Amino acid sequence: MAPWGERLAGVRGVLLDISGVLYDSGAGGGTAIAGSVEAVARLKGSRLKVRFCTNESQKSRAELVGQLRRLGFDISEGEVTAPAPATCQILKERGLRPYLLIHDGRPVRSEFDQIDIINPNYAGESFSYQNMNNAFQVLMELENPVLISLGKGRYYKETSGLMLDVGPYMKALEYACGIKAEVVGKPSPEFFKSALQAIGVEAHQAVMIGDDIVGDVGGAQRCGMRALQVRTGKFRPSDEHHPEVKADGYVDNLAEAVDLLLQHTDK
Amino acid sequence: MAPWGERLAGVRGVLLDISGVLYDSGAGGGTAIAGSVEAVARLKGSRLKVRFCTNESQKSRAELVGQLRRLGFDISEGEVTAPAPATCQILKERGLRPYLLIHDGRPVRSEFDQIDIINPNYAGESFSYQNMNNAFQVLMELENPVLISLGKGRYYKETSGLMLDVGPYMKALEYACGIKAEVVGKPSPEFFKSALQAIGVEAHQAVMIGDDIVGDVGGAQRCGMRALQVRTGKFRPSDEHHPEVKADGYVDNLAEAVDLLLQHTDK
Repeated sequence: MAPWGERLAGVRGVLLDISGVLYDSGAGGGTAIAGSVEAVARLKGSRLKVRFCTNESQKSRAELVGQLRRLGFDISEGEVTAPAPATCQILKERGLRPYLLIHDGRPVRSEFDQIDIINPNYAGESFSYQNMNNAFQVLMELENPVLISLGKGRYYKETSGLMLDVGPYMKALEYACGIKAEVVGKPSPEFFKSALQAIGVEAHQAVMIGDDIVGDVGGAQRCGMRALQVRTGKFRPSDEHHPEVKADGYVDNLAEAVDLLLQHTDK
Repeated sequence: MAPWGERLAGVRGVLLDISGVLYDSGAGGGTAIAGSVEAVARLKGSRLKVRFCTNESQKSRAELVGQLRRLGFDISEGEVTAPAPATCQILKERGLRPYLLIHDGRPVRSEFDQIDIINPNYAGESFSYQNMNNAFQVLMELENPVLISLGKGRYYKETSGLMLDVGPYMKALEYACGIKAEVVGKPSPEFFKSALQAIGVEAHQAVMIGDDIVGDVGGAQRCGMRALQVRTGKFRPSDEHHPEVKADGYVDNLAEAVDLLLQHTDK
């Protein structure tokens, strides 16, 4: 690979994935990944523009930011690009009334407070058979069914282990109904672009840092960004030999990525 | 289309799907489809060989047959080809120890009584998030993960409405783990062949009768059989214009199929 100075030349902005890069979610609010609190602080103290770009689909931005602040991170709601608010925007623009396949008690529900929702009397676990079947029946009754998925991640890492993400459930409904979902969130190009717009940085001037070789690294590269994969979160050694996606660099954690960025760009 | 006499020429054996053809499952044991009890009796009284070929993955053959007999059907366990016993055979031949993603309380569990099972202490609803995630974690820990799916149906019909079948959950685990499942059941050719072997009939002498345009009709045709679709069970009018599969005939129900078979083959 080319030296870091070449690989990071011209970088003006950084998109940071949250889960698996800043912290691992889990019981009691999860745990910060070693060195990440300081790394975010150093990055925000530099001349680089920073935006948090997450596929979080269980917590509202308010809850997510609250948890991260309790772990010591310098982060505010206005710095976060997340799929739930982006989805609300699409629902409003297209006049769609959604059936939400999310836990009524989950904080992300609050992101949809201003939206007219079909049958909000769901209950229990979001991806229970009953809730999945209700969503399936709603889709099958529509002439033109629209399925919007908040990201399509395969799995994420909690402190207790790997956990199924929303992607497998999106695939299940696609197959059951014979339809194709619209993905709002990484790796959708529109989603990355909205994060870049928020900090006024062009794709070729930006680097994405994430733990997901396909959703973060591959998605960002298809948008014309560079991308680094951290060896934290859901990273697995086989990711470095992925058949289709090759990161612009692999780093042990966010702290190492920030070291390199500050050393090679902040001049 | 050609006249029925041509389409059914040389038929010596009939494979019958159960759910959606004989009965619709549901609360209280389900309900027989009008005319099907008599149709099965007439078919079994004819010179045609008959075999029941089902993807039933919740009930054991004993339970299924018991329910059908209570509804008036002339059927015995030895006449049923089903994926659970076929899977047990594969597990034994290959020395595999399964993690079962089925409800511990479901009768199909008894089909696996002679099999050594990983972590049989699951509980609750089979396709709950927790059970799916446990299966996902087991697969991710294996160097060569094997996922066997009992059929890959998209949905089936209960008296209360359409219900998600096992296929969508197979797709979810395939996507999550980046693997391809082995399907035991329709439309797997091996499965149809084992049903034909049981009655000593060649594929070109057999007709499959089912409500699933892809799993029953398409699967049987790929094995060299003829296949009729009934307009009961999960049949939808759009099935008659399916982009890939064209049945050898569409009939209102099993009774009409049997009328035609007896009229055009039993000479």
